[in-house]
Amino acid sequence: MSQSLFEQHQDTLQGALKAIRTRDYWSPYPESPSPRKYGETADKDGQAAFKAHLNGSFELKMPGITGEAGSEVSPYGFDLGVKYPTVDIDVLLPAMKDAQKAWRDIGVDARAGICLEILKRINARSFEIGYGVMHTSGQGFMMAFQAGGPHAQDRGLEAVAYGYEAMTSAPGAATWTKPQGKHDPLVLDKKFTVVGRGVGLVIGCSTFPTWNTYPGMFASLVTGNPVVVKPHPAGILPAAISIQIAQEVLEEQGLPPHIVSMVIDADPAQPCTKELAQHAAVKLIDFTGNTAFGDWLEQNCPQAQVYTEKAGVNTIIVDSTDNFKGMIQNLSFTLSLYSGQMCTTPQDIFIPAGGIETDQGHKSFDDVASALATGLDKFLSDPERAGMVLGCIQAEVTDKRIDNAKALGTVVRDSDRPVNPWFKEARMRSPLILSIDADKEDTYMEELFGPITFLIKTDSTNHSVELAHKAVSNHGAITMGCYTTTDAVLDQIEEAALDCGVALSSNLTGGVFVNQSAAFSDFHATGCNPAANACLSDLAYVANRFRVIQSRKHA
Amino acid sequence: MSQSLFEQHQDTLQGALKAIRTRDYWSPYPESPSPRKYGETADKDGQAAFKAHLNGSFELKMPGITGEAGSEVSPYGFDLGVKYPTVDIDVLLPAMKDAQKAWRDIGVDARAGICLEILKRINARSFEIGYGVMHTSGQGFMMAFQAGGPHAQDRGLEAVAYGYEAMTSAPGAATWTKPQGKHDPLVLDKKFTVVGRGVGLVIGCSTFPTWNTYPGMFASLVTGNPVVVKPHPAGILPAAISIQIAQEVLEEQGLPPHIVSMVIDADPAQPCTKELAQHAAVKLIDFTGNTAFGDWLEQNCPQAQVYTEKAGVNTIIVDSTDNFKGMIQNLSFTLSLYSGQMCTTPQDIFIPAGGIETDQGHKSFDDVASALATGLDKFLSDPERAGMVLGCIQAEVTDKRIDNAKALGTVVRDSDRPVNPWFKEARMRSPLILSIDADKEDTYMEELFGPITFLIKTDSTNHSVELAHKAVSNHGAITMGCYTTTDAVLDQIEEAALDCGVALSSNLTGGVFVNQSAAFSDFHATGCNPAANACLSDLAYVANRFRVIQSRKHA
Repeated sequence: MSQSLFEQHQDTLQGALKAIRTRDYWSPYPESPSPRKYGETADKDGQAAFKAHLNGSFELKMPGITGEAGSEVSPYGFDLGVKYPTVDIDVLLPAMKDAQKAWRDIGVDARAGICLEILKRINARSFEIGYGVMHTSGQGFMMAFQAGGPHAQDRGLEAVAYGYEAMTSAPGAATWTKPQGKHDPLVLDKKFTVVGRGVGLVIGCSTFPTWNTYPGMFASLVTGNPVVVKPHPAGILPAAISIQIAQEVLEEQGLPPHIVSMVIDADPAQPCTKELAQHAAVKLIDFTGNTAFGDWLEQNCPQAQVYTEKAGVNTIIVDSTDNFKGMIQNLSFTLSLYSGQMCTTPQDIFIPAGGIETDQGHKSFDDVASALATGLDKFLSDPERAGMVLGCIQAEVTDKRIDNAKALGTVVRDSDRPVNPWFKEARMRSPLILSIDADKEDTYMEELFGPITFLIKTDSTNHSVELAHKAVSNHGAITMGCYTTTDAVLDQIEEAALDCGVALSSNLTGGVFVNQSAAFSDFHATGCNPAANACLSDLAYVANRFRVIQSRKHA
Repeated sequence: MSQSLFEQHQDTLQGALKAIRTRDYWSPYPESPSPRKYGETADKDGQAAFKAHLNGSFELKMPGITGEAGSEVSPYGFDLGVKYPTVDIDVLLPAMKDAQKAWRDIGVDARAGICLEILKRINARSFEIGYGVMHTSGQGFMMAFQAGGPHAQDRGLEAVAYGYEAMTSAPGAATWTKPQGKHDPLVLDKKFTVVGRGVGLVIGCSTFPTWNTYPGMFASLVTGNPVVVKPHPAGILPAAISIQIAQEVLEEQGLPPHIVSMVIDADPAQPCTKELAQHAAVKLIDFTGNTAFGDWLEQNCPQAQVYTEKAGVNTIIVDSTDNFKGMIQNLSFTLSLYSGQMCTTPQDIFIPAGGIETDQGHKSFDDVASALATGLDKFLSDPERAGMVLGCIQAEVTDKRIDNAKALGTVVRDSDRPVNPWFKEARMRSPLILSIDADKEDTYMEELFGPITFLIKTDSTNHSVELAHKAVSNHGAITMGCYTTTDAVLDQIEEAALDCGVALSSNLTGGVFVNQSAAFSDFHATGCNPAANACLSDLAYVANRFRVIQSRKHA
């Protein structure tokens, strides 16, 4: 039965396998929330399905359920009121470990087929999940639909494809024939079985509750590991819906549904994440979140392989441009998108004190600063656009951080509180732009999560490159951007990016933004600077989630 | 120039890439020390080259050389007297780190070409290296030539092939074209650069100074990392010759020779291995050796990826056989080979107290025990064969361990001190066989390195399987063997092996032995039991030794 799912989804799998090798654009999940793609009533149905969850009890099939809990609040200004099962992890984890054998024994192809079917059903519910992402993360709907729906599904599928590629790099069986000169050859039959490591734990974040959950979830799952998701307490619903879908598919295939499970804190004041992470049954951990906890996981869970995406200081080096307007527009959108709450949003923009050369002539440091302030004002002047693009501030602590940050430099553009046209209670903030001298490293080299950007006045582009390199080397980064019209400067920046291990985007002035990364083509994070020890996705992300056990005998 | 090496060695690389996918027998390096393969004078020349090293100063090109040291003693009974350069690691490692850029910039193909050329030249010096392995490890010459020469080269090439496969799983460049409906597509040019992690440290062992060194050395090297080898103080020469060859090739290619370097202890009483392993420049560590130090490395070098092969308790389950004579002969050779000093040699042989069914009728526990004792006596009765197969005891501590072990059970076959026909001073010991009751777990589940084997009297095969499973789960193992004529028992043992994560060899009665593993086909160690956290070789062994850094811009 699972085999037939594998055959059914061959085109998707083969497409993904081809895409990760060519790294051209590809996706099987339409990113447009268009009725032509998802059906005439998809939006309405999805919204209704989302609403049906509110103030109700959400069901999952797990052994060891002890009660229910949940206290999510939409950043748009209302309580979700959804209660999810709480569970005794000392009942759940041993049961998951027991289920691992069944999950191993159905084999590589069947597991891939099941993962692809789960993703297909998740895709069909992109509106429902999109509204869930919107009302937990605070993203605007369009972004919640895209980043929380098809783009997240792409990243899940990418992990399945990498897992499949790694698992099938050796055959399931082989005959080994060693010539013995005049004698008969030695002949052995060998069997190679892919075996998962144990239970995979995926610790989600509040800002991207699906995009940052699916990669670890599907990477562990396809490689033979039962997966327990521990969503962020503020962003449970989108993960819960995804897990419910996974359980449905597993059960239909005659497998224990708790091969995919969810654990939440019965009492958010007493999180169980550390206990889960150090549990002997947990052999894989995927984490997205703050550096302190990511470092703790890396250092205190020796029983597990740990994959982390942590905080960082993303940088832009502005040297020169042949499209000043395009640069300002591109940066205005980049800094506005989801109010800077992306792990890819630039925080530090390095600009020489002496200004830059552009297609509009020389621009002083202050010219660039005020152009960016004006660009943002203009871009956000339409309240509907502001509402859609900025979304909300997910956490109150971010809201406060913006106010506290104002004293850290000279305010170039203040952060105001736009009013959302549709949700009057929405916690909205527009970007705060500060200028600061290059010697204030302690200030701008610390991650200040949220819509806070420093324009750093440097001695020269050389100085900018040196500081950006230092920021990435010491504090990590997921993205680096640059604007330059000079090949030698671009080479210099590329070399710096290679040396400190960060992905570079150069001269983005059109419809691609430094904070966007496309599955199957862009490696998200590099795994070689302090912001992350892994990358979404590559072979390193999947190859150690399973081992191969061989059995050999004379033919 | 390096590019031409890549082209020159295409057949070898393609052969290796095919072999790791099919896992049929394959090797480009003849395992027979035959004049037809290596040339009429190869043995004589190799022996002369080995002797030319004795009592001399060995030269390597490294910055920071401070003096020389070395005190290797042949287990065949003479001092090697070779002195190797000692080095200031705070000069060497930063210089290696600096050299990383040149090693990165020549690119994937050129690095592969250089690795293949190094291996080719190492192969041409297999006799010289073989004598070096013989007179450090104490292996008999045939084994030293094969395991220390072509088989070790196979494992090095296998690592190169896996590294190449992983690095080329993404292209070096791509064009990303995303349709935009009626508008022009978004088009980005993307560049993907493979970047090593930093300096790779390879910590060698005394018993297999090349076989256990080449995999980590070539895996790190081909993926863009300079490599420093820290050989075991008792087994430096074979590694040093290999490193000298690598330096010659690097220098010919215009690269810093110290991309491959060697560090030894200036004073063996004050080993510098921990300092090396925790050095900030060291990002990869490969280790073969005892569990205590392997565990220490895994837990105390958070700056590095650590790959270990440690101690274990290899087991054989004897249930029944249709070839009693073949089983006894096979086990006699297995236990004799290099006096049980292989990480793959069985230590615990589980036999039901009630005996076993065989093609020669029922055999009691004692029948099996005495057949094995007699088999060993017979096999070792020819002094030349004994000398060739047993080799010597590498370390004095092993010699003592054999004597101390006699009190641990009932002696079935005592370990004597055969006299080597060619080296009267050789430290030789034949296998000690003890019988012991199943309840003495504390005794037989501890690794007793050397020619010490327990025949464990169990209640039944079920009991044997349970104990073998426990030994592997708790103490680790590289190999498990079994003898049974019943499919259901074989299934049961296969399931146990899968569950505890160990490679299984069933019913070996001919020319294949449980302690032998063939590159390109057998996965050596599984990485999922306590004996090793990695496997030689698979994608997991190489994929995290490099990262991919991307650079993108509008086309």
